[in-house]
This record gives sequence, C-alpha cells and structure tokens, in this order.
Amino acid sequence: MQNFVFHQPTKILFGRETISSIGSESIVFGTRALLVYGSGSIRENGIYDRVMASLTEAGLEVIEYPGVRSNPVLSHVREGIRVAKEHRIEVVIAVGGGSVIDSAKAIAAGALVNHDVWLFFKGKKSVAGKLPLTCVLTLAAAGSEMNGGMVLTNDDLRQKFGTGNQHLKPQVSILDPEATFSVPLDYSVYGAVDAIAHILEFYFTTGDPTTPVQDRLMEGLVLNIMEACERILVDPKDYNARADLMWCATLALNGLTGAGLGPVGFPMHMIEHSLSALFDVPHGAGLSVVIPAWMTWRNEQNPLKFAQFARRVFGVLESDDRLAANQGIHSLKSWFKKVKSPVFLEDLDIAPSAIDDLAANAMDLARLWRLREYDQGIISRILQGCRRSGLR
Amino acid sequence: MQNFVFHQPTKILFGRETISSIGSESIVFGTRALLVYGSGSIRENGIYDRVMASLTEAGLEVIEYPGVRSNPVLSHVREGIRVAKEHRIEVVIAVGGGSVIDSAKAIAAGALVNHDVWLFFKGKKSVAGKLPLTCVLTLAAAGSEMNGGMVLTNDDLRQKFGTGNQHLKPQVSILDPEATFSVPLDYSVYGAVDAIAHILEFYFTTGDPTTPVQDRLMEGLVLNIMEACERILVDPKDYNARADLMWCATLALNGLTGAGLGPVGFPMHMIEHSLSALFDVPHGAGLSVVIPAWMTWRNEQNPLKFAQFARRVFGVLESDDRLAANQGIHSLKSWFKKVKSPVFLEDLDIAPSAIDDLAANAMDLARLWRLREYDQGIISRILQGCRRSGLR
Repeated sequence: MQNFVFHQPTKILFGRETISSIGSESIVFGTRALLVYGSGSIRENGIYDRVMASLTEAGLEVIEYPGVRSNPVLSHVREGIRVAKEHRIEVVIAVGGGSVIDSAKAIAAGALVNHDVWLFFKGKKSVAGKLPLTCVLTLAAAGSEMNGGMVLTNDDLRQKFGTGNQHLKPQVSILDPEATFSVPLDYSVYGAVDAIAHILEFYFTTGDPTTPVQDRLMEGLVLNIMEACERILVDPKDYNARADLMWCATLALNGLTGAGLGPVGFPMHMIEHSLSALFDVPHGAGLSVVIPAWMTWRNEQNPLKFAQFARRVFGVLESDDRLAANQGIHSLKSWFKKVKSPVFLEDLDIAPSAIDDLAANAMDLARLWRLREYDQGIISRILQGCRRSGLR
Repeated sequence: MQNFVFHQPTKILFGRETISSIGSESIVFGTRALLVYGSGSIRENGIYDRVMASLTEAGLEVIEYPGVRSNPVLSHVREGIRVAKEHRIEVVIAVGGGSVIDSAKAIAAGALVNHDVWLFFKGKKSVAGKLPLTCVLTLAAAGSEMNGGMVLTNDDLRQKFGTGNQHLKPQVSILDPEATFSVPLDYSVYGAVDAIAHILEFYFTTGDPTTPVQDRLMEGLVLNIMEACERILVDPKDYNARADLMWCATLALNGLTGAGLGPVGFPMHMIEHSLSALFDVPHGAGLSVVIPAWMTWRNEQNPLKFAQFARRVFGVLESDDRLAANQGIHSLKSWFKKVKSPVFLEDLDIAPSAIDDLAANAMDLARLWRLREYDQGIISRILQGCRRSGLR
C-alpha cells in the first residue's frame, strides 16, 4: 500500500425527504445564493419546487442560473461567474448531476479570482478556494457530489478537460434516491457505466500490486452497481436499487477507492473525452465503448489483475490468467450490451474514419494528465478495438 | 437502505514516515499541547522520540500526561482534565491505541466543561465540543482514530461504558503501519478481532435486509483483516500486512460500514465489556470468546444473514441456510483458535461460576445502550455458550 492523505469533509445527507434540508444547510454560509441547474427537468419532476420552498423558507435570496447542459461548457460557466460576481453571491447551490455540480464548482472557484477560469483546467493556475457549495444530486454517476474534481468542455477549442483540488469539495451534498426516479433508463445506465469506469480506472492503473483492501472494496462496488442497474431496468422506481446505485457512485470517486493505490491514471476517460468533445455523446455511452477495448489492450501487458477481476466479479473459473482475464473482459462487454449501453463506435454513429481526429484530440488530454504511456498510435489502436469489426 | 448522515472530517495521513508531521499538523490548533500516552512502550520503540522531535521543531510547548492503561480508567482521565485546565492546554495529542485516544478524547471534552466527565458516559450530558485532538496511532484495533466514540472504565463502579458524538472526532490522525511493528503478536491478533467485531455488530444487528452495498464492503473488510492478521503472524514486520490491518480497522468503525443500516446495536461489545470490567481481560480476547456464542444464539432467530456471511467470507457451499450459517460460525471460531485468540471463558481464566455476576454487569450497559432485546437470562444463556462445555 502506498502513502496517502484521506480528507473528505463533505457532509452527506442521504435518503428520503432530505431535499427539504437544502435551505437550512445552505443558509449557514450566507444569504445570497446562486442556484445552478440544467435544462429544466427539475421543474418537471417537482424537485425545483421543493428546493425553492426550502431555500425561501430558510431565508435565502436566490439568483437562478439554469442552462447547464450535459458535457457542460466553459462559456456558460464564464457567464455564471460574471453573474455570481455581479450579485456578490455568498453560496452556490447546485441541483443536478455531475454536469451541474461541476459547473457550480467552476463558478464557485472562478468567482473568487480575476483570471479566466479555464486556466484552472489548463493547469496554469491552482484553485486556492471557492464560494461555499451545497448540492442536491439528481443523477447517480459522476461522484462530483463528494470529491474535488470538475470537468468542462471548452466550446471554442473543443477540449474536454478535467482538474481536481481539495478546495473544490462541496460543503454539503444531499442525496435523495427518489430524485433519480425520473432519470431516463438510458441515462441511468450511462451513470452506472460512469461509476464502474471510475472504479476500473483505479483498479487497473495502479502500479501497486499490494492493495487487497482497496481491491475488494472496488470489486464489491462494481458488483453492486451492476446488480442495482439491472434492478432499475426492471423497476425504475425501485428505491433500494436507486439508493444502492447512488451511494456506490459516490463511493466510487470520493477518494476512498484510490487511497493507498499511489499514482493512477484515467486513460479510459482520456480517450472517452475525445468522443464527447467531438461528437457530444453521453459520457457513459462513450465509456462503455472505450472500456472493453482499453482493457483488451492493457490486458496484453498485465493479465494478473484482469484475471482477479474476472474471477471475483464475474465468477470466472478458468485457471489460466490470460484466458480468465479475456473471459472477464468479454463478460463486462456482454453486460454493457445487456443493459443496452453502446459497445462499438458504430453504436454511437461515429465512423471509423474519425479515429485519427479522435486520437489527436485525446492526445491533448494525455499530455495534460501526463499519461506518458500513451501516444497517438496507441490511442488509435485502442480506438480501432472499439470498431464493430475491431482488430480483435 | 435507511436514511443516514455521513460526515467524517478527520484528516488521515497514512503511511511511512508520516509521524514526523505530527508537529506541523498540531501547531495549527495552538501552542500549548497535552501529550497523552500509555505505559511507555512508545519510549522503547522510538516513537516517543520522533513525536517529541516533531513537536519541538514545530514550536509546541508540551505537557506530558502518560499512564493510560489498557481498558483506560476514569480516575486517570479526571486527573488529565485537571492538568489540561491548569496548563490552559490548546491542543491534545494522543500517541497510542484506542485506549490512549479514547482517554485523550475524554480529556479534550472534559477540559471544556465544569461538570464531571463521567456524566457524558452516563448519558446525562452531551458533548458540545472538545479541545482540538491530533493522534498518532500505534495499534490497529479500535477505530477511535477516525470516529467520535470513546470507552472508559469507571474504576470505582467497575463499569466500562462507551459513548459517541460528532464533536469527538479527531481533527487529524496519523497512521504509520511501521508504528505497529512492535505490537506483540497476541495484541496484534486482539486488535484484528476487535476490528472484526465492529464489523459483525453492524452486519448482524441491522434490521434492514436491503443493504447489499454495505454487506459487500463489510465482507471484504473481514476477509482482508483475516488475511492481514495471518500474514502478520508469519512476519510481524510485513509492512503491507500491517498497513492492510490498520486501514481496515479504521474503515471498520469510521461510520462508513454503518451508513444506511439504520439502528444497530453493539450486543457483543455489551457482553464483552463485563469481562473487561470484572476481569480486566484484553478487549479483543474477550470478544473472540463472546462472538461465536452470540452468533450461535442469534442465528437461531435469523439464519439468512449468517448464511450469506458463511458463503461469502468462508466459501461455505452448503445450500441449507441454517446449516450454512452454523458452518460459518464454526469457521470463524476455528479461525480465532488458529490465530490463538481465546474462544472459551476458561481460556481467560474465568470460571463459569462468574456468569451471573458478568450478566448482571452487562445488564447495566444493555440498559444504557437501550438493547431492549436483552435481559439477564438471555445474557447468561449467551455466556453459558462461552464455556468449553457450553450448552451447545
């Protein structure tokens, strides 16, 4: 196990009827609030009304800032920062999924500085603080509700970049599984895939082979995410299934799974971000295409961990490590198909002729994230493996 | 899954060479420090010198308060509170295991009030704050380094009581696995048993059958604790084994395992505390006697969870739930024997004639903790099951 610091002060309120606490949890930090949300689905499912009632009752003055889209964009965040500064906002309140929370983080951090917020994403400036942030989560996926990460797409440059910082962790996050009842099934699945991807990035990219505690934690989370996802497909209003998925997605990326692993990379996200940046596909849908291809490529170098994954998560009995590993990868790909998440570029309507452009785009992020193992040729090769008629 | 609040702000520094940070982590809270430790083993293994060097370098004025014993006593804490008040202590620094950290918590909380600290334990007063507390952990067992619990024995009344409160969580805990290299093997095992017991209390006393996320987390922790413990018995200086045990013991009781389970009880601890209070046996040694007997009693009422435990942790293949459950309990008892932790009252030199006194003592705690299921007859019956020639 490698040295680590684990410091996770975000307060989580989890369960039924917790949304009504957003007012009392937010007023602690100030009265002038910026309410960040998305395209308005929270108006349809009643969450907006419950949030506003709670905020009003607690005495908050609310400036609304809707319009965050999936794969949130820099231009919208820049305008949010301007609004936050203009209204001398004291607390930012995010109501939505990872896109909304990430946008709210960027606004909360950008509101305290005079330089362009994109400099944080380019690694040119470090986040030294942010306005207090409280969240109501409406999608189990990104884990942003309990970590210091944020991802934005620069709509001018077509770059989807992410960065992380201790100061970006929300002060409070409210997780009511019922808030996810109305999430469409395809996006529920993409959320599950995203959470699985976060775990697999840690699980397969750590260079430390002595992490049995973290391994079992992660294997258990993957199993539970898969089970919960299947139950949700049977009954989208299965409270416990929604709760299991929600809590697993949070735990997948709140620092716990990675603590002790040493340096890890996010190569599957690095490649997927190019799909989202160039073709605006849902993040989870892109991931289920990239994951099996990346695993197949990576497995050629290091089958041991893949074999363990195959045996513990999919019950593979094969004793040869390489064969077992391949069976595990095949099982995961089959599971993606079973829950109707895309597994080929063609499922995303991306022609194989785009692979060169995708690889070039991904290389920007590979450089920024210092994923030195990857060059454009390797990324292209992995993307070739995402074709229906892949190289293997 | 039940509603929960998860709020765990303790900062963990984990790994090699982390002890030298105790000074810089503590000076943040003030300069006048009370250094709480035990019988002086930290002087023998060099930890004392490293802590003092770090505190001195950071500029802390240190008042030493050693003498905490295993099963720490109220009288010593009361004197510590007097010393803390006399010297207007600003930060309490605990260097030791759960006994030392619990004593330091009680001193840190008691130093801020004018009433007797025992009132916290009797539930007559609530902890509303404490002096800042930083810890250097030297024993993997209690989990006190990352939670708000504390346990003390009232040496006048021979009562071992525990209480918990959000305010009691340490500000910072430093976990260096090498600090546990010199823990005697028997106490290393007792620590592992204590950590397993914490998990089993949650796992088997929740009334909610819909907690698959927490179940897998806990099963993984138990498996890892057992594996780490066996590796430590082979090589007490196996860094990774010490690290695995240390982190598992922390995670076992930092709020994560219990989040979402709803109300749980600590009946095995309730019964064990009577053994410690009346016979001063090591806590973990008492627990490995009580656990199989309690499980056997409890299994009669609810075999399903015990069968799941048997299958997932011990690989039991039996399809009948009750038989599988019994095999799991037997396997756990056999494992305690294998690692040389006591499994019978007689192993602790406690005569069966003491059972009535033990049950009467345990009832005090059963009432305080509101374990309404238990009366003296039931506790006696469970204790009878702890005899070498037990009822079953």
